[in-house]
Amino acid sequence: MNKHLTVALDAMGGDEAPAIVVHGAEIARERFPEARFLFFGRESEIKPLLDASPALAQVSTLIHTDDVVSSEDKPARALRRGRKSSMALAIEAVKAGDADVAVSAGNTGALMALAKFILRTLPSIDRPALASLLPTYKGECVMLDLGANVECDASNLVEFSVMGAAFARTVLGLQRPKLSLLNIGVEELKGNEEVKEAAEILRNSDLPLEFAGFIEGDMIGAGSADVVVTDGFTGNVALKTAEGTARLIGSLVRDAFQSSTRAKLGYLMARRGLDGLRSHLDPNNHNGAVMLGLNGLVVKSHGGASISGFATAIGVAIDMARHNLIHLITQDLGGVFMGQSVEDEAPLSNPDKEASSR
Amino acid sequence: MNKHLTVALDAMGGDEAPAIVVHGAEIARERFPEARFLFFGRESEIKPLLDASPALAQVSTLIHTDDVVSSEDKPARALRRGRKSSMALAIEAVKAGDADVAVSAGNTGALMALAKFILRTLPSIDRPALASLLPTYKGECVMLDLGANVECDASNLVEFSVMGAAFARTVLGLQRPKLSLLNIGVEELKGNEEVKEAAEILRNSDLPLEFAGFIEGDMIGAGSADVVVTDGFTGNVALKTAEGTARLIGSLVRDAFQSSTRAKLGYLMARRGLDGLRSHLDPNNHNGAVMLGLNGLVVKSHGGASISGFATAIGVAIDMARHNLIHLITQDLGGVFMGQSVEDEAPLSNPDKEASSR
Repeated sequence: MNKHLTVALDAMGGDEAPAIVVHGAEIARERFPEARFLFFGRESEIKPLLDASPALAQVSTLIHTDDVVSSEDKPARALRRGRKSSMALAIEAVKAGDADVAVSAGNTGALMALAKFILRTLPSIDRPALASLLPTYKGECVMLDLGANVECDASNLVEFSVMGAAFARTVLGLQRPKLSLLNIGVEELKGNEEVKEAAEILRNSDLPLEFAGFIEGDMIGAGSADVVVTDGFTGNVALKTAEGTARLIGSLVRDAFQSSTRAKLGYLMARRGLDGLRSHLDPNNHNGAVMLGLNGLVVKSHGGASISGFATAIGVAIDMARHNLIHLITQDLGGVFMGQSVEDEAPLSNPDKEASSR
Repeated sequence: MNKHLTVALDAMGGDEAPAIVVHGAEIARERFPEARFLFFGRESEIKPLLDASPALAQVSTLIHTDDVVSSEDKPARALRRGRKSSMALAIEAVKAGDADVAVSAGNTGALMALAKFILRTLPSIDRPALASLLPTYKGECVMLDLGANVECDASNLVEFSVMGAAFARTVLGLQRPKLSLLNIGVEELKGNEEVKEAAEILRNSDLPLEFAGFIEGDMIGAGSADVVVTDGFTGNVALKTAEGTARLIGSLVRDAFQSSTRAKLGYLMARRGLDGLRSHLDPNNHNGAVMLGLNGLVVKSHGGASISGFATAIGVAIDMARHNLIHLITQDLGGVFMGQSVEDEAPLSNPDKEASSR
């Protein structure tokens, strides 16, 4: 029998909370019979939804709180005033050991600040980062940071590399993932000072990864790297631009198939293959960014995720918890930073500067 | 009768120079009967190609030079040693009034540095920028900077906005283009200091454009903005990520259509619509980034452009020259910066830091 895994859910986070959270959990419950759920949020809104789903209710506990972090709240405000919010309580459940992982579709900046404040960063990690899997021609790759850190220096990028490689080893099962730094050219002299310095450090390090130098944006989709590392501003823009391009092409393909009767028939004939393609590219099937670098697991869902998208994020959370990701990253970091002087747990100097939305 | 327009071509720039340059000019000559061409580069390599194309040779002049800027040359080296290169001579032809516009598929950093040094920036412009048209669901939008300036401050972003809006007025024929700053969220508090400060300036300015605040990467393809402004690092990554995503989806669609006999038949039936779509998204049909902010017109082609892609870049160049883009931008800038204290022509302090490849 599988050991139970408990997922703490911020039931009030996301554009259509709490409905997508509860309905997403319904799907996840069917996929993961070992999962148990803690719902944090307004009882008056959540209870009717749970009552309508007895199978889910049976494996769920509802913890009421009135406080909610809004999508407009600055991280600093969430830290000052949001400590009893559904988001904060879900993270507290991880810290207390009541849950194995927390999932929220709420305000990224607030989530990052609260998670960092409550769970603290791992020894030898300065800045946590948001990582996610992206579809490529060969399968999937890990990309980080996706928006947790707007400004990054070279040592941040190196930390992200270590964490991203550990993530790839765990989730993609690669012993020695191929890692590249995102840049505007592949030659050594290209890019800003931060990426050049990070490349220099990675080239001269003995890390459990294959450092493949720089990668340009057009090679991410080709699957040239298993792990793509960048700062949170660039990573967020790249991720969203890729999503927008996929959506644009989807719309244009739809229009093309409706442009004539012949084309409509053509679509019907090719449908099965095209549906598989759509599924491979659907952002909802890649939803769930993991906050790496904390003493506990927190997964961030897209604020606008669909029900199945939120279920995917819960799936990522369960996967991470099963693999004991934190333990693996800690092991890796121990090996990497042993004997190096890397600052421990930097203070939360100005959380607003580091946070962003996804 | 149309007035002649003369295009100076760096015949040695690009992955497959000089062949793509000459063959691209052949196509452009058919499209633009008023065009005349100056080819700069190694006579021994270019002359045989021109001899094989008498119609082109008739409207072309070949100016021999042995010097070539390589794709690995740093901008500073190009400035010191590349002053007699095919790239530099093409730009000099614009300065001397012998050509209306120069086109090069060579090293972007070197091109930017040479163009800035030879042509000088327009009064009130600190940093030139690379702008290009991108396909959207609604048609096309202008995006800049695409890689000329790796680090940008708020006033650079404001300059880019003025130039990008002038470009959109000229090329897209929009009286009051809708302009957005690329960011990782649409709320005012999101992003780095540079974009927040630039937004503040744009909100309080009386410019001939509609400032629509921030845009996230996923809305570029939707056509939410006519002009998208960002720093050169982010812009280059976003552009290339979009290209890579389009290529990924193209490969997956091709696979889907080959997955069964039914699917193959489906493709044949829908082919016409799909070919139109491919053409709309093909980067070669959007090739040709314009260097805005200089006392003269320079167009940068993708280094790996196809022959038809290089012809597209020549087309962009001719379009800009016909519209008298520089004059229009100068007019706009005059209106915008009148009475403001904006520094003139900043010195070429460290060209290596500003340049990148595209």
